[in-house]
Amino acid sequence: MIEDKPPKPLYIRLHERDNVAIVANSGVLPAGSIFEGGLILRDPVPQGHKVALVDIAKDAAIRRYGEVIGYAERDILKGGWIDESSVRLPQAPAFDTMPLATKVPATQSPLDGYTFEGYRNADGSVGTKNILGISSSVQCVAGTVDYVVRLIKEKLLSQYPNVDDVVALNHAYGCGVAIDAPAAIIPIRTLQNLALNPNFGGEVMVVALGCEKLQAERLLPAGMIPINPEKPPIMRMQDEQFSGFGEMVEAVMAMARQRLETLNRRKRETCLAADLVIGLQCGGSDAFSGVTANPAVGFAADLLVRAGATVMFSEVTEVRDAVQLLTPRAINEDVARALIREMAWYDNYLAAGGADRSANPSPGNKKGGLANVVEKALGSIVKSGTSPIVGVLSPGERATQKGLLFAATPASDFVCGTLQVASGITLQVFTTGRGTPYGLSAVPVIKVSTRSDLAARWHDLIDINAGRIATGESTIEELGWEIFRLILDVASGRKKSWSDRWGLYNALTLFNPAPVT
Amino acid sequence: MIEDKPPKPLYIRLHERDNVAIVANSGVLPAGSIFEGGLILRDPVPQGHKVALVDIAKDAAIRRYGEVIGYAERDILKGGWIDESSVRLPQAPAFDTMPLATKVPATQSPLDGYTFEGYRNADGSVGTKNILGISSSVQCVAGTVDYVVRLIKEKLLSQYPNVDDVVALNHAYGCGVAIDAPAAIIPIRTLQNLALNPNFGGEVMVVALGCEKLQAERLLPAGMIPINPEKPPIMRMQDEQFSGFGEMVEAVMAMARQRLETLNRRKRETCLAADLVIGLQCGGSDAFSGVTANPAVGFAADLLVRAGATVMFSEVTEVRDAVQLLTPRAINEDVARALIREMAWYDNYLAAGGADRSANPSPGNKKGGLANVVEKALGSIVKSGTSPIVGVLSPGERATQKGLLFAATPASDFVCGTLQVASGITLQVFTTGRGTPYGLSAVPVIKVSTRSDLAARWHDLIDINAGRIATGESTIEELGWEIFRLILDVASGRKKSWSDRWGLYNALTLFNPAPVT
Repeated sequence: MIEDKPPKPLYIRLHERDNVAIVANSGVLPAGSIFEGGLILRDPVPQGHKVALVDIAKDAAIRRYGEVIGYAERDILKGGWIDESSVRLPQAPAFDTMPLATKVPATQSPLDGYTFEGYRNADGSVGTKNILGISSSVQCVAGTVDYVVRLIKEKLLSQYPNVDDVVALNHAYGCGVAIDAPAAIIPIRTLQNLALNPNFGGEVMVVALGCEKLQAERLLPAGMIPINPEKPPIMRMQDEQFSGFGEMVEAVMAMARQRLETLNRRKRETCLAADLVIGLQCGGSDAFSGVTANPAVGFAADLLVRAGATVMFSEVTEVRDAVQLLTPRAINEDVARALIREMAWYDNYLAAGGADRSANPSPGNKKGGLANVVEKALGSIVKSGTSPIVGVLSPGERATQKGLLFAATPASDFVCGTLQVASGITLQVFTTGRGTPYGLSAVPVIKVSTRSDLAARWHDLIDINAGRIATGESTIEELGWEIFRLILDVASGRKKSWSDRWGLYNALTLFNPAPVT
Repeated sequence: MIEDKPPKPLYIRLHERDNVAIVANSGVLPAGSIFEGGLILRDPVPQGHKVALVDIAKDAAIRRYGEVIGYAERDILKGGWIDESSVRLPQAPAFDTMPLATKVPATQSPLDGYTFEGYRNADGSVGTKNILGISSSVQCVAGTVDYVVRLIKEKLLSQYPNVDDVVALNHAYGCGVAIDAPAAIIPIRTLQNLALNPNFGGEVMVVALGCEKLQAERLLPAGMIPINPEKPPIMRMQDEQFSGFGEMVEAVMAMARQRLETLNRRKRETCLAADLVIGLQCGGSDAFSGVTANPAVGFAADLLVRAGATVMFSEVTEVRDAVQLLTPRAINEDVARALIREMAWYDNYLAAGGADRSANPSPGNKKGGLANVVEKALGSIVKSGTSPIVGVLSPGERATQKGLLFAATPASDFVCGTLQVASGITLQVFTTGRGTPYGLSAVPVIKVSTRSDLAARWHDLIDINAGRIATGESTIEELGWEIFRLILDVASGRKKSWSDRWGLYNALTLFNPAPVT
């Protein structure tokens, strides 16, 4: 495309202390470009990448978001490109000097009057979809569950018009694993809590084998589900009563039919926004993530918290290097210490596996302008908004509180998504700079792009374009409200996210830090 | 079922040194039952469980297969039931005193004249199926690959009658992982080699995202596949040229169509049995595994080796405690040391994760009569037959040798299956005592049951009943030949295994000992 006039060079500086800014123009801004104010670009700089606003001497601090993201590996001249090789990674912040609950944000004014149409469950939780979830105790039976799910979709589902979908909760766990290892608690409680996600309406059923280490009863935690102990909802393939695969399939179909009938009687009713449990995540981040999409999501997170909802953000490895900005926001010292506990657990886990901090960011993150994990983390935590952090969940734990929570999970999109579904989210907001077709079958996912380019190219995958903030078409506040309103629409079933329209879903992926045997 | 006469009490003793035998009768044999020879049962003993043939004093050795499977926790009287709690687990055999290549079996006479109808590839390998495999570089795109595979099955596949199937090689790897950690080599080479399985005919194509850590080029190992470097067979969703999901799908479909045309020209031709690459595995084992199914498979393994084929057995944790019986069979000291190297690596891996040896066997194994992992291992290695072990593969390495190999993998059925497919098997023989609906989409799986009860109940899941050995209806030799002949039939497409008839497939599950980030 040849343009008559080159676009006006534009950079975005986030904080008065910053000595770098990111180039806003799409493509690559040529050397010699002159910004308003007179700064002359010395090198060609791609969109999202950093330009030095002043001369930065070797070993001097490089600041973005008002924070040190690293130290100059060599002298960098004003107007020069600061690529990843020019930034030396600083030490991770030490835990022992971290401020605990020292800057607890004041509670913001309540936001009343916002509602959505949800499925209220017996335990008080509210779903945004009405899904039959079929649990499996071990990967051995996954093929069988897939077989039955295909059959239910073909033969049964149309008879139950109020049921949105039937979903196999398959996974790679259940046997061939060190089930008594200390870390085995994570995948086991994840599986228990996945089945309890509000979108499954409490209608738990399990397809099991019989000889597996993870015995099916362990997926029915006592007291969580009203289950007849005489006849728990388990089909065990090795059960003596079955003669042949056909009979096993029939047994699962019968169990499914009962549950479909119950689920089909569920009706959407008007619920307060306070009944929402919203997960926040980012994936395929770039330098705009912390400038456009994540701030807008942070604004929406504040609205949700003000409305009384539960909001969780996650991704330990992308929070770790900015956690000193979060511990002061913890509601009390215990919550701050819980944050540190999760970070420290992960530090040890990574060290044991020989992984170092340079394993993040990904090549795409770097291409998008993120020099290192510190810069990525500073952009990542912006999506938590400005509310106090009132609780911390260990991986796969179920949320029981309103307000802003930190749900400790890996940053891996599909692992984080799985764990947030186990923690009880009923909708996820996902920001992306590079683009990902990510989706979850259990809960709707709203995808927010950081740049207009991506939103234009991926017009049928991206739900909201936050790139409009960088171009000045929209403010963070306006985008935040737009996201908030879209959450209410999608949660009510009035609108569908793109991943739901195409049926693009990532498989559940358990976090199992324990060995495979 | 009420019978007029109770069945004749029957036990199976395997070795003259054994002081225990297993009860062969189905169900539970009542106390007071009298065996031929006069032994009186003191306790009710379930099928497959052990009975003491003599008084065994506390701390004395308990022997089965002529080997010590443990020590008596208390005095056990002649005719008493030896349940798992009566057997103390011995130390794992030490590596430093292990005999290396001290009893290399003599080469058996060649077995000529056996052939099958296979798909010969350009690299000389021979497939047993003709499948389009679509690789993905990262789990983020798995939903997209699934979408395209559904579409190909609906719209394209019927136009290519010689193509058996289209299979998504999806996985939970590619990003959010410590890609530079030492152990990352395992999942990466597994993905590379999966795409090279002979059943995919060398027609590799990759659906990628763009920003992932595992860049798609790494899935196309140089020299392994004749690929035009100008236009590698990669569809990258973040590629600037695509406008919208529809265009991306079109690009994958076009790439698939090209490959389907090439694959459709493949024809089965007569190949020597020497062209087979057969994987052996067991899952859901019981005390009969080492008596019926595994010995029969071992006999078939010897026939295959005599015919010049490649045969691999696996499952480190179920070989570890009997490896002192395998190191003498290694063809030379290097191969014996490689065996020990893989065992030692796994010992360390388990210890690092806090797993101990009692994590195996599973509850179902124990119910089936296996007291501990030593007894399980002694039964497991029987399926390797009696040939010399000529090579050892690290997890996910590709086999390049004929003869009997040890392919180091976890014992987890689906992880072992995935790794053996990466190592190049074109058919797997799977023995089971408790029963599992296990199957692989890339290669046919023949399932052999250890007991007639299971074969009767699972008449439409079990392909061969080795329980006939225990009842005296068949000999190990006869069953071994039957398995050998069925391998040739299934490899030729003349017969279909039950998992292929139902379409019951376990998802690929990578072995990733490195951390998730």
